[in-house]
Amino acid sequence: MENSAAFQDFYPDAFSHCYGCGRSNPHGHHLKSRWDSQQPEQTLALHTVDPKFSGGVPGHVYGGMVASLLDCHGTASAAAFQYRQLERQWGDDGEPIRFVTGSLTVNFHQPTPIGVELAVRARLLKLDGRKCQLALTLGIGSGDNEQVFASGEMLAIQFKAS
Amino acid sequence: MENSAAFQDFYPDAFSHCYGCGRSNPHGHHLKSRWDSQQPEQTLALHTVDPKFSGGVPGHVYGGMVASLLDCHGTASAAAFQYRQLERQWGDDGEPIRFVTGSLTVNFHQPTPIGVELAVRARLLKLDGRKCQLALTLGIGSGDNEQVFASGEMLAIQFKAS
Repeated sequence: MENSAAFQDFYPDAFSHCYGCGRSNPHGHHLKSRWDSQQPEQTLALHTVDPKFSGGVPGHVYGGMVASLLDCHGTASAAAFQYRQLERQWGDDGEPIRFVTGSLTVNFHQPTPIGVELAVRARLLKLDGRKCQLALTLGIGSGDNEQVFASGEMLAIQFKAS
Repeated sequence: MENSAAFQDFYPDAFSHCYGCGRSNPHGHHLKSRWDSQQPEQTLALHTVDPKFSGGVPGHVYGGMVASLLDCHGTASAAAFQYRQLERQWGDDGEPIRFVTGSLTVNFHQPTPIGVELAVRARLLKLDGRKCQLALTLGIGSGDNEQVFASGEMLAIQFKAS
């Protein structure tokens, strides 16, 4: 799965500069979101945080980074759910589907460790026209062994090109 | 006001490594929060975002950065409101007061421009023991001329040292 194309790989060039997930930003996190092969109704991004993104106490991720990971994975996932709903494919000949964040709530349950591969997941709550509600988690492991450090909820809005 | 000590300048050394606001993190944003001299019941952090922290389209701030600014300013402000409530001073001989984020909601109203000095503000909603609720804004200008790009609400929890 790690070698398959990610949702962000299909973002149009003009919109590929995001520090969190844009392939054209040389400085950023380059988050990569895909369908979760283990839980195909969900999406998954795997990411190991660089130690420089420390919280106040070294060894843990700073809060803004947690929000960043949920935010970028959320908007990418909203587009993926819309592509699936419309029975379209990323990179097809149609108008590219992109979502922006309307609101994001992040609940911090426990400190998020640095130096381990984190799993960021999105589950669709509701897709109604241009509005997509998602449940998000950030943790390690999966299924019954998942340990969640932060969870969230996003309202994403499909961007109108014109 | 810009030359006065910021709340973050008083964080204990062991807790001064935050990428968002820690003086001991050489890579980070070094956000500085203070009482707002124009609206002394509020707090204010002024910050100009580096162009590398672009959103998908260059010229605007990526969503995670907006959340980061609100998050770091919020926890610093929660501590400031608690110091004030207890009639204590930053850097006094007592146990340092620190807050962590329980939950943060960010509402994105319009794209946040890069290259202008942003004003991040916090207003106290409720302070009840170790729980502090804050209203947050990120924008430019002040008072009747304030233009808000993002707003938020935070529940911050006072950290127990032992």
